[in-house]
Amino acid sequence: MSYPQTLENVIEEFRKLPGIGRRSAERIAFSLLDRSREETEQLASSINQLKERLTFCRICNNLSDSEICTICRDPSRDKSIICIVEDPKDLIAIERCGVYRGSYHVLLGRISPTEGRGPDSLKIHQLLTRIKTGEVKEIVIATDPDNEGEMTSLYLMKQLKPLNIKITRIGIGLPVGSAVEYADISTLSTSFKARREI
Amino acid sequence: MSYPQTLENVIEEFRKLPGIGRRSAERIAFSLLDRSREETEQLASSINQLKERLTFCRICNNLSDSEICTICRDPSRDKSIICIVEDPKDLIAIERCGVYRGSYHVLLGRISPTEGRGPDSLKIHQLLTRIKTGEVKEIVIATDPDNEGEMTSLYLMKQLKPLNIKITRIGIGLPVGSAVEYADISTLSTSFKARREI
Repeated sequence: MSYPQTLENVIEEFRKLPGIGRRSAERIAFSLLDRSREETEQLASSINQLKERLTFCRICNNLSDSEICTICRDPSRDKSIICIVEDPKDLIAIERCGVYRGSYHVLLGRISPTEGRGPDSLKIHQLLTRIKTGEVKEIVIATDPDNEGEMTSLYLMKQLKPLNIKITRIGIGLPVGSAVEYADISTLSTSFKARREI
Repeated sequence: MSYPQTLENVIEEFRKLPGIGRRSAERIAFSLLDRSREETEQLASSINQLKERLTFCRICNNLSDSEICTICRDPSRDKSIICIVEDPKDLIAIERCGVYRGSYHVLLGRISPTEGRGPDSLKIHQLLTRIKTGEVKEIVIATDPDNEGEMTSLYLMKQLKPLNIKITRIGIGLPVGSAVEYADISTLSTSFKARREI
């Protein structure tokens, strides 16, 4: 016997979500049956609103409920320094540390020849306009330290060099709490190239 | 920094579901952002339809998309035997075994003095009417073998005895694959009381 179609639909829809298998989806579907109609409608409408209301900040491409995101609107944030990230999730990870008080620019992607994504697919033109019109003193490149992130970082560096502003790259090397003995070759060799005088 | 409110709402709604913590909810919310609007609407509408369309079978209280469930509609199912379960989930578990080809009656609950649920909260009256009007030869009581399930089973037995039909209880004892050595006291003593001649 299979479930009624309505129930089966919910199970199948939940199975499509990351980290949810058939059994978890069934458990969730049954838990929804036990809830009030108001509660399930709240869940459904929160999902719909995600696509209806959430947008990208007109200035930095961060996720936002309004035209300009909370960071770009915040007068306490230092607008003379821009941190470049690939993705809104990277921005959120950096914000979680609480160590950075400047502004951001989200590229909404990275250069990836294998996926056929060139520099034109990124919000670089918008970044250049922003730098030219603003009083930017430093750019921190915080793309991922993998092949595609490094490629994107190199491309950005070439584009930004002529603008005569300070360009930095986030520290790349052994993670805090790790051991030299177990570090992989790429990380260890990068950490040598990126060594600093102390 | 917190997420935009729209995103935060989705995360909070998903966190309410069983087995989903903050991190999984975030992961799901971001995965929804990457999907097309059609896909997220499909998820939302499947949730809404659960409450709009799913109902209980008018005959046996099984979950159903229509007035009468697939099992009650199936002419190949033996209507002379009714298996009583607490919950639609129990029915589904039994159906999964494929060993039973009779019909069901879902009580939609169990007697629970601690939760203030008496026999009146169960679909027992409906069951009695069903037995009186149909050609029922056997009732299999498949409530849970715990305190409340046993209490419900005893109550049912008293109600059904005067009707002069065969009443059986599902086998209760050591689970297949388990060991006498590790069985808990209640299960082992029940398995002695429930012993059968072979």
